[in-house]
Amino acid sequence: MAFQGEPGAFSEAAAMQLLGEGIETVPRTTFDAAFRAIPDGAADALLAPVENSLAGSVVRVYDLLLDSDLRIVAEMILHIEHQLIGCPGATLTGLRSVASHPVALAQCERFFLAHPELKRVPAEDTAGSVREVLARGERSAAAIAGRRAAVRYGGVILAEDIHDNSENFTRFVLLIPQGPDSGHWQVEPANAAPLKMSLALRLAHKPGSLLAALEPFARHGVNLLKIESRPIQGRPWEYRFFLDVEGPETSNLQTAIEAARGVTSELRVLGIYPAARAGAAGA
Amino acid sequence: MAFQGEPGAFSEAAAMQLLGEGIETVPRTTFDAAFRAIPDGAADALLAPVENSLAGSVVRVYDLLLDSDLRIVAEMILHIEHQLIGCPGATLTGLRSVASHPVALAQCERFFLAHPELKRVPAEDTAGSVREVLARGERSAAAIAGRRAAVRYGGVILAEDIHDNSENFTRFVLLIPQGPDSGHWQVEPANAAPLKMSLALRLAHKPGSLLAALEPFARHGVNLLKIESRPIQGRPWEYRFFLDVEGPETSNLQTAIEAARGVTSELRVLGIYPAARAGAAGA
Repeated sequence: MAFQGEPGAFSEAAAMQLLGEGIETVPRTTFDAAFRAIPDGAADALLAPVENSLAGSVVRVYDLLLDSDLRIVAEMILHIEHQLIGCPGATLTGLRSVASHPVALAQCERFFLAHPELKRVPAEDTAGSVREVLARGERSAAAIAGRRAAVRYGGVILAEDIHDNSENFTRFVLLIPQGPDSGHWQVEPANAAPLKMSLALRLAHKPGSLLAALEPFARHGVNLLKIESRPIQGRPWEYRFFLDVEGPETSNLQTAIEAARGVTSELRVLGIYPAARAGAAGA
Repeated sequence: MAFQGEPGAFSEAAAMQLLGEGIETVPRTTFDAAFRAIPDGAADALLAPVENSLAGSVVRVYDLLLDSDLRIVAEMILHIEHQLIGCPGATLTGLRSVASHPVALAQCERFFLAHPELKRVPAEDTAGSVREVLARGERSAAAIAGRRAAVRYGGVILAEDIHDNSENFTRFVLLIPQGPDSGHWQVEPANAAPLKMSLALRLAHKPGSLLAALEPFARHGVNLLKIESRPIQGRPWEYRFFLDVEGPETSNLQTAIEAARGVTSELRVLGIYPAARAGAAGA
């Protein structure tokens, strides 16, 4: 399974939680390269983050998904928790610098306010910053990343859960090529998990067009979970909408989709899969 | 006017384009600090990015706006163009390293592929990386940022427009405290610019609730420009929706709002302001 990031990244942790430690992971430095890993034959599936509770949607992943022939077969929600990771023998009081991706550094503001003596060192990757600290073996340097990165590179946790906000969740989706042969990647749903469907639709820019597209879902008892509009490049007055909906049964979803097709200029089902619950899946 | 970033940042360039070079800017390192600058008395207004065409919405700004008593009185759209900036006397062939925020580095992938000899150095800020390169005076080091940073710190542009994607726009909003005294910050609208309104609303999680809230807008000829849902922390089955709508006149907007109030559990108008056009405002 391909993912974006270095070995030990949050995406790798999510893949292991979803499908077990036996899975073989294929790390790629960019989302574009991770998506290319499937047509290139380097991977059979892809785990990609689609939204974070603090940072919002991962717009690039939605764009790449639309350009691909992949579909969503499962989702998982990972609790993002930042750890301060150093070399064996290092201590918090002996530290002089802390490296990580600027977003991770910014999410640990309170820790840095309490430790003004620590120099913040920006890096291109959270897990990669742990790898570098351990490779150099410097006891005065540490890095911020998830627990998995500490295990992966043999680091020790010098301070636990140093993030400011504990409500930091990332939602990942498991993507495989279109086609019938997907039994291998089927994920066991939680008991009585409702069915979730992700779709992309295109509408004309006129009053009431979104209303007409949403009406069939309400009529068939399908709940709207998430909606997001995105301008379409090169078509100034048209918009693409990404929707996540939830329904009691596949038949409700299918009936609503058929009715909505009649009032949209384009409608693509990105996948139907069992809903994950934050907390249940959080680690 | 407060903004998040270092002097010379894209936000400062947007502020100057919107209100002229005479404006006094108040740089702050985080969005939280920029929002605090107004109640603290350090600034009268705030310019904040709300969305980027490649990266999506700036979720933190929406959260801070809802927690504040500020309102939107204008918007502006800035074309984001990355320049390679070095010290006077430096040349592209003499360079060994290039610093910038990881997002800016990632947006110049093609440039780095064409120059594999250049070391990428992550930094916490685009304009700040230019300041550091100029302060050190090293001719082998450069940084990636906007034109304004080159002017601000006396750097020279060694390679122009090195970004991969020219469709990179950031939308900013001008925020001032609620109240009648806003003439000072009124922005002259473009000829015949339609009126735009931003609002936040809260809905119960049941089929059809969004439909009922949108119906009054369609009925009164008000166009939906942007919609985004966000889960509400601590209320697992409720959602907040952020909407941008556009109408021919204030009266259409007001009538639609009054009708929508009856079917939402909470509705807040974040501001009514003349619509900016990308390209017209782009620089």
